[in-house]
This record gives sequence, C-alpha cells and structure tokens, in this order.
Amino acid sequence: MRLAVIAMDAEERKKPSSYPEPFFTRMSGRKKRPLGDMFGIRNFGVNLTELLPGGESSILHRHSKQDEFIYVLQGTPTLVTDEGEVELAAGMCAGFPAAGVAHHLVNRSTASVFYLEVGDRSPGDQGTYPHDDLQAELGPDGTWIYTHKDGRPY
Amino acid sequence: MRLAVIAMDAEERKKPSSYPEPFFTRMSGRKKRPLGDMFGIRNFGVNLTELLPGGESSILHRHSKQDEFIYVLQGTPTLVTDEGEVELAAGMCAGFPAAGVAHHLVNRSTASVFYLEVGDRSPGDQGTYPHDDLQAELGPDGTWIYTHKDGRPY
Repeated sequence: MRLAVIAMDAEERKKPSSYPEPFFTRMSGRKKRPLGDMFGIRNFGVNLTELLPGGESSILHRHSKQDEFIYVLQGTPTLVTDEGEVELAAGMCAGFPAAGVAHHLVNRSTASVFYLEVGDRSPGDQGTYPHDDLQAELGPDGTWIYTHKDGRPY
Repeated sequence: MRLAVIAMDAEERKKPSSYPEPFFTRMSGRKKRPLGDMFGIRNFGVNLTELLPGGESSILHRHSKQDEFIYVLQGTPTLVTDEGEVELAAGMCAGFPAAGVAHHLVNRSTASVFYLEVGDRSPGDQGTYPHDDLQAELGPDGTWIYTHKDGRPY
C-alpha cells in the first residue's frame, strides 16, 4: 500500500449511485473518487467528488445517525438546505450532524466543482428525503435499501 | 448556526496540545482550527491544521482503534512513518488505519503547510509512540491520559 496518493489520480467509483430511478439518473453529473478506502480506513469514508455543471451531490436528505462534512476545493457549488441556501467557494466548509438540516450541493455554475466529503459509518442509519418519495435504511452488510415512503420497494 | 464557514476564519484551538513536556513544546509550530465541531459533528473531528517551518503534526504515533486521514491544501510536509517517508504536496492525501503504520507530518520547508486532518472518535483508543517514552489512553470523558511506557504518570 502506498504511503500517500495524489487525490485526483485515485480511481473513480465504478457504480455512480445506489439510488433507484428516477434518482439514479439525477446523479449522472457526479463523480466520486474514494480516498479513505485506498488506505484501509473503515470508520469513516472520504471522497474527492466532482460535480459537473448541473450536477448535484445527492438528493436533498438527512441521516439519522451519521455525520457528514464537506470542504470545497474548487468551483462554486450551492449548498441547498431546508433552512435556506448559500453559494460556496474554495476554502469553505460545511458540516451536517445526524438528524440536522436536510442538505445537498448543486452545481449551478458553468465549471466543475471539486470537494472533499467525509461521512462516518454508524450502523443502523436511515436516510430521510423531505422533497422526494424515497426513504433509505442501511442494511447490516453496509448497503442501502431504498423504498417509497409507504414502504413499497422500488 | 451558520450553514457554511470559510475554514481559515475558524477560531484556533486554545489549547495547543495535551501532551506532557517535553512533547508539549515540540508542538509549538502547530496551529489547529477545529472545523467539524463548529457544526455540531460528533462522530469524527476535522481540523484545518497549519505547520510552521520546523513544526510537526504530532509525535510519531499510531492509534489502536481510531482511523486518521489527511489532505494537503498548501505547502510540502514530509510524511514520516516507521516504514519510510515521502514529501507531500497540495492535492495529496494519506490515510492511517487503526493499528497501522506509525506516522506524523514534519514541515522541513521554509513555508507554512496547511492540511485537513480527519479522525474518528472510537472509544477505548490507545496511542503508541514507538520512538518516545510515552503512551496514551483515551479516558471515558474523551480526554487523553499520558504516561511513561512503564505506566508512571507524567
């Protein structure tokens, strides 16, 4: 295992998203390079994520148990939350504690956005999506199970 | 609570180090700006850390349970480990899984180094310092207890 890596040289994640349609297609402007996994880190994940113009980081969501943090490296993503929105720039950061505001990043600019995202891997997590007919539950094997809000599978 | 923050505007941590002497003084070239705490994140910590010329990130160490990750924003720190060393530059990252190689960053350059550091907060963690007469145990209140390697207190 290498001691250190140029983050932009890290391999892109093969699976662009685990969302069901129509949410899967909404993630087509997003590319994730997992960084922490390369070094064998297990307690949290770190990705170098690129949002193409029009891309978004995820569906607007909050986690029940997992915390998230982002740091903008390049470009001007808009942080959209259920308590307002703000345009970010390189050198800005934001954190999203479990059960806090629902959030996602949207790239409304004409240039790519690059940011680091960190999230822990607390088991028993649930994802809530206030604007969409979607809910998620983290299975014991670490994969997300998505259903409609009435529990019907996708 | 603000939605987002310019990381360099975050307040510096008041206590420069929790090490006993003579290790405390060795940390005088290090400044930490806690970022995650500002947003109420608890499962992991994120700091924007500056190393002045001659500064070092910590004593060479490994954790027993906690993972660590760093991403270099500016400058050329040297990553020193018990399996070799490498000079880093902006855009490079490294990860240190629990019970992995012992490591620290040293700034041998003439300019400040800035990097992001991430670490989780797994309880029951221990710190091992292969080159120094120091060991550490994370107390139930989240503070570190440092002793000599034979258990005598500092």
